[in-house]
Amino acid sequence: MQITAKPLSSVPFVSVDHMMKLVLGIGVERFLIELAGYIEDDYRRWQDFDKTQRVAAHSPGGVIELMPTSDGRFYSFKYVNGHPKNARSGKQTVAAFCVLADVETGYPVLLSELTILTALRTAAKSAVAARHLAPKGSRTMGMIGNGAQCEFQAIAFKAVPGIDTVRLYDIDPAATEKAVRNLAGSGRKVVPSRSGEAAVEGAQIVTTCTADKQHGTILGDNMIGPGGHINAIGGDCPGKTEVHPDILRRAEIFVEYLPQTRIEGEIQQLATDHPVIELWQVVTGATRGRSGADQIALFDSVGFAIEDFSALRYVHDRITAGPFSERLDLVADPDEPRDLLGMLLRARARNEAAVPARRCNSQERLADVSDE
Amino acid sequence: MQITAKPLSSVPFVSVDHMMKLVLGIGVERFLIELAGYIEDDYRRWQDFDKTQRVAAHSPGGVIELMPTSDGRFYSFKYVNGHPKNARSGKQTVAAFCVLADVETGYPVLLSELTILTALRTAAKSAVAARHLAPKGSRTMGMIGNGAQCEFQAIAFKAVPGIDTVRLYDIDPAATEKAVRNLAGSGRKVVPSRSGEAAVEGAQIVTTCTADKQHGTILGDNMIGPGGHINAIGGDCPGKTEVHPDILRRAEIFVEYLPQTRIEGEIQQLATDHPVIELWQVVTGATRGRSGADQIALFDSVGFAIEDFSALRYVHDRITAGPFSERLDLVADPDEPRDLLGMLLRARARNEAAVPARRCNSQERLADVSDE
Repeated sequence: MQITAKPLSSVPFVSVDHMMKLVLGIGVERFLIELAGYIEDDYRRWQDFDKTQRVAAHSPGGVIELMPTSDGRFYSFKYVNGHPKNARSGKQTVAAFCVLADVETGYPVLLSELTILTALRTAAKSAVAARHLAPKGSRTMGMIGNGAQCEFQAIAFKAVPGIDTVRLYDIDPAATEKAVRNLAGSGRKVVPSRSGEAAVEGAQIVTTCTADKQHGTILGDNMIGPGGHINAIGGDCPGKTEVHPDILRRAEIFVEYLPQTRIEGEIQQLATDHPVIELWQVVTGATRGRSGADQIALFDSVGFAIEDFSALRYVHDRITAGPFSERLDLVADPDEPRDLLGMLLRARARNEAAVPARRCNSQERLADVSDE
Repeated sequence: MQITAKPLSSVPFVSVDHMMKLVLGIGVERFLIELAGYIEDDYRRWQDFDKTQRVAAHSPGGVIELMPTSDGRFYSFKYVNGHPKNARSGKQTVAAFCVLADVETGYPVLLSELTILTALRTAAKSAVAARHLAPKGSRTMGMIGNGAQCEFQAIAFKAVPGIDTVRLYDIDPAATEKAVRNLAGSGRKVVPSRSGEAAVEGAQIVTTCTADKQHGTILGDNMIGPGGHINAIGGDCPGKTEVHPDILRRAEIFVEYLPQTRIEGEIQQLATDHPVIELWQVVTGATRGRSGADQIALFDSVGFAIEDFSALRYVHDRITAGPFSERLDLVADPDEPRDLLGMLLRARARNEAAVPARRCNSQERLADVSDE
């Protein structure tokens, strides 16, 4: 029995299953390249966006956040939690979904899973930053932390700035083995390293993406010489950092959205007036990137709502045809907006006309409006 | 092809169609009575809730808002728009959906349409307020404004405080005819009135629920004598009011959440320090309701997040069995959380093993990870 009057207002939904199909259908590398293009486009028009602080609900076990943004044509928000204890019960510590809506009507135009998509947009965003900040001719990236984000970073960096060799290190050798296995046949040279120092030595780009939820020193001051690019992904919430503050003091620091990065990024270790540059200023050409070949550029990446917006916009454009979404009957579209009860009564009448002789069980029984 | 590893984390989804079935299956009146019970329970523990201001994104055509709240066990947020011009294209001016989540894990436990449910919770909430504020032995309600909310109010008020006669008036006679038609056979006496004055004269309860988006005087000072209860529903955003300020000055005013009602309610016409009482204080017994039989009690109702929370909680309890929801694959649950790319690769391998001889078309082709 389908009793809704008008299914015209149904909302496309990209499930986890659809997202996996979409990513595999497009190909991980091409997906990352195209998504990086969308992110870069949105960085270029950064000032068109409403930039709101995230709205957080804290509890003893974790946090639930809503992250809205809008460019005046589309509106998006992301729902995301952070619950470290979830790992004990086999659940994700971070799960996310999101909605894209049409600003002109306020109607949602896309509901999507965002766990897989966040992993992809994080890697694509890092590649955009590196394209603007890494030394010209970079070929080798050292990566410390070989968790879920690692391989996406490796693939994205080959796609965009031309990195063809990736050195991997993790305190857990099983994580490195997993990454080596997943990257086999991906067209880049993958070298497991015996230490963090070995992974980053001589690399033009250094990526840190560990998961430890505390102040750590993944990157010690003696590990970083002049002239490289540091892509610092893992330090992304209060109390969680990866890079020694002396490196931060030697580096030129680039961030996404300063009010958020002051709280969540590596720069929470520095004075609140320490100078940094927002990446959009480099992307638009409003300011220079690295000031010289001997400088260290450091991208203090924490994740920002506009990058999710870009990812949603990309997915929205790519699912217009094909088996990568279904339609959800999420928004009521009454046949007569002033007559919501009438819509219910007509639906009941249609149902009764359609199945006059059917015995309804108690759960499906369409009771009287005035039943008591 | 279903390639997701573990569908165990799927989220129940109540579509518009499901909601209609659920409401008809339970019966509109019983639904309203039970929902009023949930709302009253949550008013009774009002101080347990996080009460956040709504997060609004304004645009020339309207507004999109997120309304979160939590009682420490569950978290909910509502997405709602307000776009007056939508009516021209046959769309809803207000459409809504919402999510209930488990605070302990951060996982969503319910996604639901909220257009039909909002209409029901608004009526149920009005009935809760009237139970505490209306004169004892109230039998007759006069209603000005016979749009979508009208009949739900009429049904809810019979269910809770015992109103059995409803007088209806709308400037559009077709709206009144629609309401009379929909309420036929509902067990209450329904009287179309020739004017607003005729509808409210001698009624113990007066409900205003017009849709006009401006300061109106639906209820003039001479229409209201002593001793009644005014249920003011329609004035619910800046610039939209229904009740003459002189009535407000004579009445004892009750509100949901004062910081929001100051901006959105009838009391936007009064000084910002005009005394009012939050309804939860009356429900808990912390303060009296009406101070005497000759007083006018006025419930300045604008809609608050906790009422949506109550409605979600009710629906969540009622859909545990039965055909009133489906499961959405909204949150990724990787077989190994550190191995998101591996999950994709394994899904591709399973798919290839399952359909070895199948010719894929270009859109379904599962391309190489490193395709370029």
